[in-house]
Formats: sequence, C-alpha cells, structure tokens
Amino acid sequence: MKSRFARYLPILTWGRHYDRSALTNDLVAAVIVTIMLIPQSLAYALLAGLPPEAGIYASIAPILLYAVFGTSRALAVGPVAVISLLTASAIGQVAEQGTAGYAVAALTLAGLSGGFLLLLGVFRLGFLANFLSHPVIAGFITASGILIATSQLKHILGIEAGGHTLIEMVGALLSHLGQINPATVIIGVTATAFLFWVRKGLKPLLRKMGAGPLLADIATKAGPVAAVVATTLAVWAFDLAEHGVSIVGEVPQALPPLTLPGFAPDLMRQLAIPAILISIIGFVESISVAQTLAAKKRQRIDPNQELIGLGAANLGAAFTGGYPVTGGFARSVVNFDAGAETPAAGAFTAVGLAIAAVALTPLVYYLPNATLAATIVVAVLSLVDFSILRKTWSYSRADFIAVAATILLTLMLGVEIGVACGVILSIALHLYKTSRPHVAEVGLVPGTNHFRNINRHDVQTDPEILTLRVDESLYFVNARFLEDLLQDRVVDGDALRHVILMCSAVNEIDYSALESLEAINHRLTDLGVGLHLTEVKGPVMDRLKTTHLLDHLNGRVFLSQYDAWKALAKPADPAKAAE
Amino acid sequence: MKSRFARYLPILTWGRHYDRSALTNDLVAAVIVTIMLIPQSLAYALLAGLPPEAGIYASIAPILLYAVFGTSRALAVGPVAVISLLTASAIGQVAEQGTAGYAVAALTLAGLSGGFLLLLGVFRLGFLANFLSHPVIAGFITASGILIATSQLKHILGIEAGGHTLIEMVGALLSHLGQINPATVIIGVTATAFLFWVRKGLKPLLRKMGAGPLLADIATKAGPVAAVVATTLAVWAFDLAEHGVSIVGEVPQALPPLTLPGFAPDLMRQLAIPAILISIIGFVESISVAQTLAAKKRQRIDPNQELIGLGAANLGAAFTGGYPVTGGFARSVVNFDAGAETPAAGAFTAVGLAIAAVALTPLVYYLPNATLAATIVVAVLSLVDFSILRKTWSYSRADFIAVAATILLTLMLGVEIGVACGVILSIALHLYKTSRPHVAEVGLVPGTNHFRNINRHDVQTDPEILTLRVDESLYFVNARFLEDLLQDRVVDGDALRHVILMCSAVNEIDYSALESLEAINHRLTDLGVGLHLTEVKGPVMDRLKTTHLLDHLNGRVFLSQYDAWKALAKPADPAKAAE
Repeated sequence: MKSRFARYLPILTWGRHYDRSALTNDLVAAVIVTIMLIPQSLAYALLAGLPPEAGIYASIAPILLYAVFGTSRALAVGPVAVISLLTASAIGQVAEQGTAGYAVAALTLAGLSGGFLLLLGVFRLGFLANFLSHPVIAGFITASGILIATSQLKHILGIEAGGHTLIEMVGALLSHLGQINPATVIIGVTATAFLFWVRKGLKPLLRKMGAGPLLADIATKAGPVAAVVATTLAVWAFDLAEHGVSIVGEVPQALPPLTLPGFAPDLMRQLAIPAILISIIGFVESISVAQTLAAKKRQRIDPNQELIGLGAANLGAAFTGGYPVTGGFARSVVNFDAGAETPAAGAFTAVGLAIAAVALTPLVYYLPNATLAATIVVAVLSLVDFSILRKTWSYSRADFIAVAATILLTLMLGVEIGVACGVILSIALHLYKTSRPHVAEVGLVPGTNHFRNINRHDVQTDPEILTLRVDESLYFVNARFLEDLLQDRVVDGDALRHVILMCSAVNEIDYSALESLEAINHRLTDLGVGLHLTEVKGPVMDRLKTTHLLDHLNGRVFLSQYDAWKALAKPADPAKAAE
Repeated sequence: MKSRFARYLPILTWGRHYDRSALTNDLVAAVIVTIMLIPQSLAYALLAGLPPEAGIYASIAPILLYAVFGTSRALAVGPVAVISLLTASAIGQVAEQGTAGYAVAALTLAGLSGGFLLLLGVFRLGFLANFLSHPVIAGFITASGILIATSQLKHILGIEAGGHTLIEMVGALLSHLGQINPATVIIGVTATAFLFWVRKGLKPLLRKMGAGPLLADIATKAGPVAAVVATTLAVWAFDLAEHGVSIVGEVPQALPPLTLPGFAPDLMRQLAIPAILISIIGFVESISVAQTLAAKKRQRIDPNQELIGLGAANLGAAFTGGYPVTGGFARSVVNFDAGAETPAAGAFTAVGLAIAAVALTPLVYYLPNATLAATIVVAVLSLVDFSILRKTWSYSRADFIAVAATILLTLMLGVEIGVACGVILSIALHLYKTSRPHVAEVGLVPGTNHFRNINRHDVQTDPEILTLRVDESLYFVNARFLEDLLQDRVVDGDALRHVILMCSAVNEIDYSALESLEAINHRLTDLGVGLHLTEVKGPVMDRLKTTHLLDHLNGRVFLSQYDAWKALAKPADPAKAAE
C-alpha cells in the first residue's frame, strides 16, 4: 500500500530525505532559473498569441504539481516554443486572437491535454509516444523552428501579418512590408543581433578573459535579461511607444487566477485532436530531457509516472490561467547545471515567478514586443538543424524520406498535418521494408559448422538442397513474399529435393505466416520436395507446437542448421573434401 | 523486346505450343464449367441486385481477356459471391436498385476496379494485397457468408426487405414476415434442402453405389442445374408465377452489349474507395486460387501480371454490361479438375456462355428467384467457418482479436467498414507486439560456446556483465523500450561493468534506434559501464559502419558472443570450474 502511494507520489520518496544541503543547492538553482524564465515566459505567451501574464501563470502551478507527481529531479516544466506554436495553431482555428474565447480555448486545450496525459499514464500507455520516430521529430522540430522564427518577423518589423504555413506567413509579411515601423525595426534587429552575439561570441570571449565556465555560462543565459532591460529602458527614455513601437503594456499585478476551461462539447471536439498531438509531442520532448538528465546521476525515470506528472501540470495550467506546458530542454538543463537536486528547486522557482507576477510586472510595461520576438527567434533558430537530412540520407533512405516529407509538409501545410503525415509515412515505410525481407541463400563454410550467404562467402552447397535464411519475422505483410519466392525457386530447380528454412532471425511467426508455411509445405509435398526448419527460436517453437504444422511437415525440424546439413547433404565430393 | 512482350502477353508463351491433346482437354473442361456457370451467373447477378443477364455477360468478355493477359492456366474469372455482395453494398449507396443508374454504377465500379488493378500491376505494387492478413480475410469471408445468406432469405420467403448490416437485414425480414408467399417458401425451402443434401449426402451415396469419383463429383456439381430445371418446370406447370412466385422473367436473347461506364466525377469519387477494396479483395482471392492450382503442376504465377490480367478482365466487364469480377475458387477448381490445360479452356467457356446467352435465355423465363437464392445460400454457407476463431485463439491472441473484430464489425457495420477496420487493427497489433520485444538475458552454457536465456537454462553468468539478446529488429517503435529497459537494469546493478547487446536476431537498426544506441552509449559512458555489440548481421553492420556510433562506442564490437565473453568475463570461480 505504502509502495503504491510512493509510486504515484514520488515526492514521498525524495521528500523524506530532504536536508539543508539539498535546500541550499535547490535555492541557488531556483534563483538562476527564475531570472531566465521571466523574459522566456513572456515571449512564449506572445508566440502562443496570449497575453504576457499567461506565460508566467503557466510556469507556476504546473511546476508545483510536477514537483509532487513527476519522477525527474531536474525537469523544469512550463511553456516551450514548439508547444506554444502548436497552441497558437490549434486555438487560432476556433477563436479570434485577443478575444476572451481565445484565452478560454487555450485553457481548454491545456485541460484536454492534461486529461489525455493522465489517462495515458494511468493506463500505462506511454509507449504510444514511440510512434513518433526520431527522424519525424527532428524534421518536425526543424520545420517548427523555421515557422516560429518566421512568425516572429512581424513583431521585429512592427507590422501586422498572419498565417499558419510558411507560404501564408511570407505572403502576409511581403504584402504588409509598406507598414514597417522604423523604431521597431531598430530595436528588433539590434536585439536579435545582440542575442546572436551573446549566444555565439560572448562565452568564448569571457573564457578568453579568464572567467570560469559556470560564470561564462550564466552570463550567456542572462543575455535575454540584458536585452529586455536595455530595450525597455530605451522605449521608456525615448518615448518610443508614441512612435509606434508595440509594447507589452499593462500586465495584471496578481497571483495566477483561478480559471475554468471551457466544457462546450463543440469546442472540446474541435480541440481534441490538437490536444492529443500536443500531449504526445510534449511528452516526447519532456521524457527525452528527463532521461538524459537522470542518466547522469543514475536516477530512474518512470515514463508512465511522467505522463501523470505532465498531466497534472497541464490540468494545473488549465485552472490557473495558463496554456499547455511540458518539460523544456533549455530550462531543465539550466536547472540541472545550476545544481538543482530535487523537484523542490522547481517549487522555489514557482515561488520566484509568483513574486515576479505580483511585484515586477509594472517593470515590463515598456518592454517592446520586438525584443521578446528577438529572444524567440534566436532561441528557435538553434532548433533548426538540416544536418538530419544528410545523416539520414547516408544511413537509410526510408528515414530520409520520413524527415524530408515531415519538413516539407510541416512548412507547406502546417504543424498538425505535417507531423501526422510524418507518423503515417514512417509506419508505412517500415511495413514496406519488412514486406520484402532480406533472404540469403546460405551454404556451409568448409571446415566449420557455420553457414553463410553464398553470395558473400566461398561456401559448400548441394544441388539437392536449397537453404534460405530469412532475416525477418514472418507475418502477414511478408507471408506471401516467402510463398512467391519459394515458388520461383522451386520451379527452377529440377534437381531440388530439400528446402531448408533457417529461422535464426525469425522472431515471430503469426497466424498468416503459419498458414503460408502450411501452403508451402502442401505445395512442396505435391512436388516431392521436403520442407525442413532449423534453428527455430524457443518462443516461436513453443507456439508452433500448438499447431498441426509440425505433424503435417513433410520434412523435419532440426535444432541447428549443421544437424540438418549432416542429415540431408550427400557426402561432399571427395576431391573437394581433400582440399 | 520479344521477352517483354511475352511477359505482358502470356498467351504468346502457351499459345505457341498449343496442340490437339490440349484442345481436347480444354474443350471437355469448358463444357463442364459452362453448365455449372449458367445458374451460378444468374444467381450472383441476383445477389448484386442486377438483372440476371449481367451475371452471364460478366463471365464472357472477362474470361477472354484474362485468357490473353493472365498467367494462371486454370483460373476461371467471373462473378463471385463476396465481390457480388461488395458490389451490391457499394452501388446501393449511390443508386436505387432496378434503375438505369444502378446498372451504370456497376459498370463504373468494374471500370474503376479494372483501372486500379492495371495500375497496381504496371507499377508492380501487388505486395499491397499483403496488408490483408489471413485472419482478416478469414473473418471477412465468414462474416460475408452470413450476410449473403441472410440477404437471400427474402427471396426464399418471397418478401421484400433491404439492409446492408445483419441487424438491418434481420429487422427488415422480421417486420415483413406477414407478407410471406407460401408457394415461394415451398420452392425455396425444398431447393435449399435438396442442394444441401446434394452437397453433403449425394457424393457418398453415389460412391457407395459404385460410381467413380469423377462422375460423383460432376453429379454433385450438377445439383444446382437439376434444381433449376425442376423448379422452372414446376413454376411453368402449376402456373406459380400467378400465385406470387417471383421469377427471372424475360432475359434479352443477345450477345453481351457494348456499354459505357459512367464518367461523372461525383460518381467516380463515391465509388473510388469501394473499387479499391473490391480490387484488393478480389486479387487476394484470385491469387490464392491461382497459386494453389499452379503449384500442383510446377507452373509459375506472376502476381503483378495477374493484376494486369484481372484489370483487363474488369475493364472488359465494364464495357460489356457486366460488373466486377475475379478468379473464383469453385469455378477454377472445377475447371482444373475437369482437365483444363490452358487458358483456352476459359475462352471455350466464354463461347459456351455466349451461346447460352443467345439461345438458352428463354428457357429460364419461369426460373424462380427462390431457387437462385437457394443456390447462393448453400454455396456461401460453405464459406462460413468459425473454426478460425478457435485456431487463432490457441495460436495467437493478436490474430484472434483481428479475426473477432473483423467478423463483428463486418456483421454490425457492413462489409467495407469491417474489412478496413480489420486491416488497421492487424497493423496496429503487429506494431504493438514489436513495440515490446522479447529480450532475454543470456549466459554461457557451461562446456560449450552457446549462450542461452538465464531463465530457461542453467548457465554461467558474471555479476559484472549483463548480456541481453534482443529478439526483434530495433526501430522507432521499440527504440525507447531498449533505453528504458537498460536504464532500469543499470540503475539496479552497482557491480555492473559491461553491457553486451547480442544482435543475432536484430535484422534492422533504423535511424531512431541508432540514435537510441548513441544515447545508451552516452549514458553508460557517464556511469563507467562499457557497451559492447556482438553477432551483428552483415547488412546491419554495413550500415553502422557509415555512422559515428562505432567510433564513439565505449566498448567493442565482437564477431561472436563467445569472443566477447572470453575477453570480458573474469576467469570462472575455480570451485565452479572444477565441477
């Protein structure tokens, strides 16, 4: 009973051993993460099309709930770039940005997503996330990065423009180019250039000047804070808001409010598919980060409990004015590097952000949106990585096709269609590959009891025996392939007396393949050719024993291929044997 | 050039060697098949909801075209029960039975199906048919048999009733029970009982009376002809048509007409999915029969050329007043058993049916529809075979679920949804199975160089070494499974120094799995644990060599598991070694 509680409430495990040293480490990490999160939260809210405070609210209750239910010690939960983009795309289809309906849709999306994650966790269905292959994720992230950066150009240029696909966005930008606001452009471009320099040039410079690695790292991470402070001061000092620079403006000075997501069936139906997509993509991002960090300290992540943790976090976001959240890569790595030892660091971060929400929001009144857009652009461009195209091209054409299709479709048709097509395509390509498995004709390596591909090795064969090693499980998609192949081979070979299927790589024989083997056995029997099986694996053999195949088999089942060879092959040509 | 012609026109191959003996055999087979086909063609047209002559027309041009393009020597092409049902279900959704639109829809369906089959053949996409697993086919055929038999009850009872699902049909039958026509019931029930007896009791009786097996067989197959003759005479003699017995009535005395399928885009769009379904199901039925018969004579079937043959046959049906056709089981077996040697037998059958269409149609004027329905019911009930449920239950739960779902959904929701759900479900179940592969921890069988599952065998292990044999290809669906598994195992094992992955059953490592292996290697490196690979297959190794995994691997790649053991294991405990 106690252990079940502990499984569903990881806080009971780490909370019991919490001590002063952990407290100190967690507090230090929390301060660093809080400073980093303030501009980031505002920026991601902008990306999602929501008021700036939504980004901060989405970082408070979710972090606290994850600290109770999550299994990762260092994961930092909150808004992230890709999920913010998906949120904007999903709720943009059901409500107009800036309306009350838009904010309610964001809450509803978070609620649905939280509920779905909880369900997956309780029913232990975390493996569903595996259907997102790495190439599809990589392609999706790269394409999303481009879409996000493009979507922020309007803030940097100070124009109004919409669109959810690359073509729509670029078209909208071009047609509004006339409205460019010079002051905004100066701020936006300067901030972008500065942030790029901080990311690429500052750290080496500091190290060269003798700064320690940790200090250099923190200074780099503080870049966005510096940009925020400098541009806010500039707008205030030069009264740039009067010159058309769009600013954050009034942000309520309050703790996260209690909010209710919408329960209208129509709204829930429209948001259901996006919520599932957001849940799974968020889970994949989060679990990868959590596992990487946990492995460094030999800690354990329970993927199904993680679903529960993320589900609770998203439900928390739904009821406290937030929007969908997940474990973010950048914030978690900072948290880990800054020394966070337990989820309490997250709780302290939440407290820090709550203080910011109450006390510091007046300070961002003059913060220009162009600066926030600049931080987004610089952050997401680091996600864009076309090297996956080259890597998959040289490794596997199927994976390349999946990446390329995901990137193209995401850019052309939007994030949801892009990722859905990527998943379907990678499943189809996998099935296609297994539908025509590698089948090697093998022969005996002279002087050994090993059998190798006759095309790769100099091996001994017997014209009366055809030995095929099938390098794939036999199941319905390739069952007929083997029938066709054997029919072709047997029609050709008049001298043939025995067919041996070497099953060392056959991990499963499903019912369709079983019937195919029965058909093959039947046809070979008609032709007076024996069918033999060798090296059948334990679990496969256990199953075959429950059927009639082995009774009807016109040949035998041998434990090893060499046994079959000894029993069936004619004595080798004496001239050859003497070699 | 010549050989390419020969590939696409198999008639050039067999036609060149055609001689008098083949001619005699083909003629005899054609006469027997023609007699069997006349009532069958009328009955299947009734099942499809088309006028009786459509069934005969669908057996003339298609047979001739298949004879030119098909690769099977004995396949007989024409209307079959399941395809007739699918036709009725598809065109019933776009037109009212008995209208001109209904007949045009049937032609269009045949045309679309023919075009699709041709495309698949030309692009050599025959493997797509493999996605229909044997359990799904078996479940679908059984459920279709029940649906077909139920759909014919109205003809046997002499009432009007509709419906496409079992519940609809039974409901319609029950609500019209009051309209039962006594004369029709007498004819229908008598004919059904007689045909059942012919099928079950006549052959043993004849054999007991000393008849040869061939004669007994032909007499059995002639049962439907006898029923047709007897009931037609009865209707004529007792003027039963005046007493409400529904009869075939006037059938045009003519050769197949030239017809045009409909080309309205709306109609084609509505029929596209059913046409694809009909094509694939028809192809699967046809190729199974063709391969079984060809194997008996060491003949070769080219699946892609078969698609072209069936495509041509269906296009022929579309332009000569027919409806979708395929290679039928019953008619092909009769053709083969009667001694057909070449597709010319089919051509002669076509001539026989053409003569029947011109000369014999007045004779079926008084043929009661109840008799035709009886022949259908008796024929399709032999398709109903629930033993597949028992067989798959004992062999594999996944296959059982696929069968059971296909049967239930086909009965409840109709043929199209049933088979589509069956296909999707069997793919999902396959992916689910491979998502959690069998992984065995193995140890050395003392005194040998074999490694076996530590849970099944008494083997030698080393606390510093964890050897896992993964019995599945590594690909995106199970990539994270291995990561999770290793994380769990490594966190537990403090003494652990080496992890060995034995890859003898790993037939593929896709890009996702490659990245997982890199992540595993990275995490194990952090923990000071070595990662080693053994028994990697040739094609998998070729691919890994193009990547950086092998450079970064913190352990080694060994050719055999025994090599790895010799290199990494501590000398065995002397006490144990002495045993």
